[in-house]
Amino acid sequence: MLDPNNTYVRIFHYSIHLLVVYSAIEVPLRFALDYEVTPWLLAMDIVVISLFAVDIVVNFNTALMHRGELCKDPKVVRSKYLRGWFGIDLLATIPFELIATGLFSETHRVIRIIRLLRLSRLLKLVRFNKISRDWHTNRVLNQSVVRLVFFSFWITLSAHWLACGWILLGGVSAAEHVGREYLSALYWAVTTLTTVGYGDITPITVPQTIYTMVVMLFGVAVYGYVIGNISTLLVNTDEAKARYVSKIEELNAFFTDKCLPYELQEKIRDYYNHLWQSSLGHDENQILSDLPPTLRTEVALFLNRDIIQMVPLFRNAHEDFVRELASHLRPALFMPGDLIIHKGETGDQMYFISRGTAELLDDENHPLATFTDGSFFGEMALILSQPRTANIRAVEYCDVYILRKNTFEKLLDKFPDFREEINKILEARRQALPGMQEKADREKSEAARNE
Amino acid sequence: MLDPNNTYVRIFHYSIHLLVVYSAIEVPLRFALDYEVTPWLLAMDIVVISLFAVDIVVNFNTALMHRGELCKDPKVVRSKYLRGWFGIDLLATIPFELIATGLFSETHRVIRIIRLLRLSRLLKLVRFNKISRDWHTNRVLNQSVVRLVFFSFWITLSAHWLACGWILLGGVSAAEHVGREYLSALYWAVTTLTTVGYGDITPITVPQTIYTMVVMLFGVAVYGYVIGNISTLLVNTDEAKARYVSKIEELNAFFTDKCLPYELQEKIRDYYNHLWQSSLGHDENQILSDLPPTLRTEVALFLNRDIIQMVPLFRNAHEDFVRELASHLRPALFMPGDLIIHKGETGDQMYFISRGTAELLDDENHPLATFTDGSFFGEMALILSQPRTANIRAVEYCDVYILRKNTFEKLLDKFPDFREEINKILEARRQALPGMQEKADREKSEAARNE
Amino acid sequence: MLDPNNTYVRIFHYSIHLLVVYSAIEVPLRFALDYEVTPWLLAMDIVVISLFAVDIVVNFNTALMHRGELCKDPKVVRSKYLRGWFGIDLLATIPFELIATGLFSETHRVIRIIRLLRLSRLLKLVRFNKISRDWHTNRVLNQSVVRLVFFSFWITLSAHWLACGWILLGGVSAAEHVGREYLSALYWAVTTLTTVGYGDITPITVPQTIYTMVVMLFGVAVYGYVIGNISTLLVNTDEAKARYVSKIEELNAFFTDKCLPYELQEKIRDYYNHLWQSSLGHDENQILSDLPPTLRTEVALFLNRDIIQMVPLFRNAHEDFVRELASHLRPALFMPGDLIIHKGETGDQMYFISRGTAELLDDENHPLATFTDGSFFGEMALILSQPRTANIRAVEYCDVYILRKNTFEKLLDKFPDFREEINKILEARRQALPGMQEKADREKSEAARNE
Amino acid sequence: MLDPNNTYVRIFHYSIHLLVVYSAIEVPLRFALDYEVTPWLLAMDIVVISLFAVDIVVNFNTALMHRGELCKDPKVVRSKYLRGWFGIDLLATIPFELIATGLFSETHRVIRIIRLLRLSRLLKLVRFNKISRDWHTNRVLNQSVVRLVFFSFWITLSAHWLACGWILLGGVSAAEHVGREYLSALYWAVTTLTTVGYGDITPITVPQTIYTMVVMLFGVAVYGYVIGNISTLLVNTDEAKARYVSKIEELNAFFTDKCLPYELQEKIRDYYNHLWQSSLGHDENQILSDLPPTLRTEVALFLNRDIIQMVPLFRNAHEDFVRELASHLRPALFMPGDLIIHKGETGDQMYFISRGTAELLDDENHPLATFTDGSFFGEMALILSQPRTANIRAVEYCDVYILRKNTFEKLLDKFPDFREEINKILEARRQALPGMQEKADREKSEAARNE
Repeated sequence: MLDPNNTYVRIFHYSIHLLVVYSAIEVPLRFALDYEVTPWLLAMDIVVISLFAVDIVVNFNTALMHRGELCKDPKVVRSKYLRGWFGIDLLATIPFELIATGLFSETHRVIRIIRLLRLSRLLKLVRFNKISRDWHTNRVLNQSVVRLVFFSFWITLSAHWLACGWILLGGVSAAEHVGREYLSALYWAVTTLTTVGYGDITPITVPQTIYTMVVMLFGVAVYGYVIGNISTLLVNTDEAKARYVSKIEELNAFFTDKCLPYELQEKIRDYYNHLWQSSLGHDENQILSDLPPTLRTEVALFLNRDIIQMVPLFRNAHEDFVRELASHLRPALFMPGDLIIHKGETGDQMYFISRGTAELLDDENHPLATFTDGSFFGEMALILSQPRTANIRAVEYCDVYILRKNTFEKLLDKFPDFREEINKILEARRQALPGMQEKADREKSEAARNE
Repeated sequence: MLDPNNTYVRIFHYSIHLLVVYSAIEVPLRFALDYEVTPWLLAMDIVVISLFAVDIVVNFNTALMHRGELCKDPKVVRSKYLRGWFGIDLLATIPFELIATGLFSETHRVIRIIRLLRLSRLLKLVRFNKISRDWHTNRVLNQSVVRLVFFSFWITLSAHWLACGWILLGGVSAAEHVGREYLSALYWAVTTLTTVGYGDITPITVPQTIYTMVVMLFGVAVYGYVIGNISTLLVNTDEAKARYVSKIEELNAFFTDKCLPYELQEKIRDYYNHLWQSSLGHDENQILSDLPPTLRTEVALFLNRDIIQMVPLFRNAHEDFVRELASHLRPALFMPGDLIIHKGETGDQMYFISRGTAELLDDENHPLATFTDGSFFGEMALILSQPRTANIRAVEYCDVYILRKNTFEKLLDKFPDFREEINKILEARRQALPGMQEKADREKSEAARNE
Repeated sequence: MLDPNNTYVRIFHYSIHLLVVYSAIEVPLRFALDYEVTPWLLAMDIVVISLFAVDIVVNFNTALMHRGELCKDPKVVRSKYLRGWFGIDLLATIPFELIATGLFSETHRVIRIIRLLRLSRLLKLVRFNKISRDWHTNRVLNQSVVRLVFFSFWITLSAHWLACGWILLGGVSAAEHVGREYLSALYWAVTTLTTVGYGDITPITVPQTIYTMVVMLFGVAVYGYVIGNISTLLVNTDEAKARYVSKIEELNAFFTDKCLPYELQEKIRDYYNHLWQSSLGHDENQILSDLPPTLRTEVALFLNRDIIQMVPLFRNAHEDFVRELASHLRPALFMPGDLIIHKGETGDQMYFISRGTAELLDDENHPLATFTDGSFFGEMALILSQPRTANIRAVEYCDVYILRKNTFEKLLDKFPDFREEINKILEARRQALPGMQEKADREKSEAARNE
Repeated sequence: MLDPNNTYVRIFHYSIHLLVVYSAIEVPLRFALDYEVTPWLLAMDIVVISLFAVDIVVNFNTALMHRGELCKDPKVVRSKYLRGWFGIDLLATIPFELIATGLFSETHRVIRIIRLLRLSRLLKLVRFNKISRDWHTNRVLNQSVVRLVFFSFWITLSAHWLACGWILLGGVSAAEHVGREYLSALYWAVTTLTTVGYGDITPITVPQTIYTMVVMLFGVAVYGYVIGNISTLLVNTDEAKARYVSKIEELNAFFTDKCLPYELQEKIRDYYNHLWQSSLGHDENQILSDLPPTLRTEVALFLNRDIIQMVPLFRNAHEDFVRELASHLRPALFMPGDLIIHKGETGDQMYFISRGTAELLDDENHPLATFTDGSFFGEMALILSQPRTANIRAVEYCDVYILRKNTFEKLLDKFPDFREEINKILEARRQALPGMQEKADREKSEAARNE
């Protein structure tokens, strides 16, 4: 069986799609304008029909996607195809025109009927729905672009068909050059579909009038659909942004109502602006918690592995331990000036800076050291219950990851080997406690330099 | 009293509706074009009037739906009808034209007035609102289709009436054939309503100008309504899908922001794609929990009875026990490669595979046995507290149902007879513990073979 | 100070509004068409100006609504009015035309300028915004209707003004009768605003062309506004219904996916249909819990007082006790066939049927008694801890109110007097236990008969 | 490096934007109408080009905003600019026309090509997207206004360009005056874009027909975009109000369904009206809880500092204590007639009136004292556990802030110094208990007088 995701199968399918589009344009045009079949057109016809025939064979031998899984059983595939698209594909493959010119002398009436039969080839267009669905759900493409492409495709094709119909009904003077005749008809179709309605080409005979009315009513629907589509696109693409904007507007109303001083207003707006600009409206926590555990761990590991392995405590930790650890880090945000660590408090968290700058302050609040992206601090709180020895303050907005002591404890319960190692370190450090913080800082600054 | 859901009553009502539509078309047309009444039209008139009369009688004797319940009390029905539709129905039944032609010599002016009176028959159309409401709430029909049908019906009828009005005001030349005259008027109405406005037929006299302005403003409203309708349809039908698409877009933004490797991206997209394709966006858990207990149990029983009765433990369970059990199964999803059962862990759940494949692994992670749709495992965890004896891994996406030990315990409390039986089994198996897992596996593979 | 809600003040304000509308129509028309001032028009002018003057006096003496409260302080009112509408009101009151005809000889140029000045009267229209806001928030009116009325009003007025502008620019032939001239201009305005654009009246001079372009672009905005408005109306009015419909569609998808048997499908759809039809989508519980306690109690009391006072237990209860009791009843819904009370279970709730039918069953499940709207049962469970003596089954959908034992106990704690009374009853009944249920049933059937 | 938020840099950027707009208008116009270059135009050209050159220099030296932070590293800035806008900016700076007139004799063909090259200056317009984004996210501007301004700008520019294209294709007679020619072309563009389509200027040649069709289809999209935009604006701006209106409509349905008496209906509507009018739909609690702790405290402090410092108990409290206290006040609303404090109950809250009036009642419910905006009561409940000594009743709607005893206790734990002070006060007051309430009232009335 062929794999539908195989590159050659894909290319073949796209060629078929191109030929279907070609047929969708040429077949009605030939029927309407009734022009001579040049050798080029004939050759093209033969190419179309033979590739359509190959398509049937390929379809009989291509595995199917069913409920998200690939079904490779030939029996199932064939019976499904036979009950599904086979009829349409077969009809599109019959070379009506070639048969006719072979069998009959070329009377005009017979040719017209044959060309009518050729319209059956348009049924293959129904397949385009499937592409549209595929594009909508599977790929990385931007949905708005997909929708606009499909909308443009269908509206152009509709206008073409309506123009062919208008020619058939004699809506434009046939005295003109055949290209000009088609152009006028297309112009009429576009004028009507877009409801511009200049009125320079109007229906005269009864069938023309009826046809025009149908096109208008159809145009209304198409138009409504297009506008609905574009409006929906607009509404959807902005969802995250709309939430942001409406938050700001709500804040503005609140500020006005409560007469908040301008500086405070600016600070708050600045905070929301930072939130918006740094995350573009997606909530990392939410995204991770929606994932199943396996994937959550993998993503967390990718995001945090580097930062974790820089911590001396975790240098000898088992790969599995790091995986679990990564998936338990929680993001948090500190504002400029916020104290991340209060001197004297008994901490129970360690911090990894993912983006931003923080400083270690001495007792007179002078900066002693600076922590930037990729550095960490407070790791001793995970194993020792001692008061923090200094203040650490955010200088800019700081996106940090937090590891809580109780999470860490739970992990140690799961990895008893590592607990022993930690206990050893603990023992060693307990004896060398006074100089520890300084040493850790030195290590940190080294790590920062190595980045 | 007649039952409104009786087939004959329904057919009769639909005939009445058809006749109302016929009247809605013919009555204004006759008034506008003022044509001769042929015997056929006369016969049709008589049919309409007599069936309308029968309709009054039927309505007096048909039970009413009131707040979701059928009210069969004749007094209530009659008083409701008398205070409600009776007046309109009676007015529509008076054969003005027949009376007139009997009483007066056929002066033109009298006939015009009579034909004006006949327009009262159009009041019956108000009933169509009720059908629309019925279709919207009661039936299985797709709402979009219902709306489009009603929209097409009303817009066509409006265009017809506007055309009749245009004829009355002399907007189109009366010199032409009567059919052609009507067609031109209809063409004008459609051109104006759809805001195409070719301008080949324009108002000349003062009444025509005023009429045109009213139609235009009316057309704006209709048009707005139609576009609003279609947009709403578009927005509503996609709700589940829109949520899916916006999830994917949010993920894409997150991926770009965090530079996730492509394989991980694909895995995550694949996961959401599977979720979407396998459930089409409905959340089984949510749907079940919204139902009242009786219905929830019935649905759960239907979904899970087969799978439950295959478990040897439950083979002798009472019907009521199975019902309760079914309503306590919870769906879950495992990804390919996830370990469903970890060897050595003390489990407290049993699993039923509803869709997907999982394998029993030996100590070197070679597959020993395969579980597919309809098979189950881990049932011993419900009654014994022993470590799992092997790993079981999902091969594809596995939709499973989970039964928790504490749920099971609660059920046993409710069914003390069955607890005794379980205890007996427990006693027996405890003595034969070592070989048990293998035996269960054998039973399972048999079950799988029998499917 | 005058009360703005006083009937006479209201009537006066509505007259002023009417005169403003009259001015908004007549003033630009006179400026554009430049017609003779008939005595009638002059009289009307005098009426308008004098009433506008009275309006200023009234406004100086009418209390103001401020943040939902009436401010009656004359100082505040006057200073607010002086800083607010006074300027506009004064400008609108100056009788420019009367002054001019008094002062100057009637040269044409002077009159034109005066008529230009009269346009200042249109500024009073800004007040209409306030009416619209009032109508939107205060009254019982349906919002859709309010919006459509305002939309029609403004679009008609806009068309009128645009028509006046068109006349000024010579867009229509001035040779015609003055009424016909205006009609043509209005027709042109409507044609353009609605984007129909017949093209029978088109701009010729440069100012006309520029004016037309502005009107078109303005028309697009108006049109977009109108369509947006109508679409929003459509989307909003259906909110409850849309939720219902989307629930049904979700269920249908679920049914198809799981192949549920048709009877079960019908049962579930029926359940949701009942929910929808009986409550029309509003959730009584939600509405009550959103209210502040005082109002919640009042509403609950209104809804449940009758049913509570029918219970013999509560016959001697204090008014305050009944109030509290009423606000603690919780609505619930039983489906046909559901057992409301299970024989043998120890109940802790009593039930009041608000709508529906239930039956008391004997041991062979034959109905012994029927409970309908307004009856109650299970009241002994509130004071005694004994097993229920019989099954009670819902025959139709039963909307019931439930009173829980622990709620009742808490109430008794609050009303110790009533607890004593209950204890006495309890003592008495305990001695007469066997015959009690029957007696209670008898009482209930009596109560049902008295309804 | 220059700071992008520096006033001079801003002014310079706005000048550049103005020149870009000038170029966007003049360049295509000169290409289409092919008019003589007057000295003024030449001078303007030189100004444009020189300022564009300065712009390049400025851009090389202006710090960049990146992820909400300012990047001042010259290397980063320059490489970013070189890889980003530099090419476009350079192309826009080349003085094609000046070079050409210097180098070549002025053959017409060369000039045409040069003027074509000048169109490259339009690329600078892409920058406008950035402004639009800035305006959308950073400033205090109302979003609807921003959108309408940008929409008007782009639609006007589009119409201008389309008009230039139409002139190039000979769509309007070139015999006319050049200004008139342009006006006609612009008129045609607007007529077509807005889908009005009078039809007084229609395409004749083939290129014109094709151009018209493209414009129409483009017009549909623009139109859809505009309508979508305006609809979205409408839907978004009303969000809070829409919630209010839909609440009222839901209540009305509920009232009708339950036949609530009119007075009760009015009371409930009044309550929601008050809620709406006093807060305009924003939920203070929600806004505060969304803020990070630092900002929350600052806002709360601003809102409540005055009221807190008026309380004698807190007069000596430390600044930090007041900050914490402020951030723990919770807003609440009482309806007219509600008892805020029940006599005899043991209270555990103190109240600050932020807006409204309440009265202290004696035992016969006669008002003894009145509390208005800024006054407080019940503060003794925070430190003493004694029954309330009198009823306090809301006269109007009262917006109050509540401070709970346990919150207060937690704060005292954090500020042990202040606890000692409180204890002292407590001791003192305990000895003087009987007269205390009166004294407090006196203090309060003094405070009210001082406001």
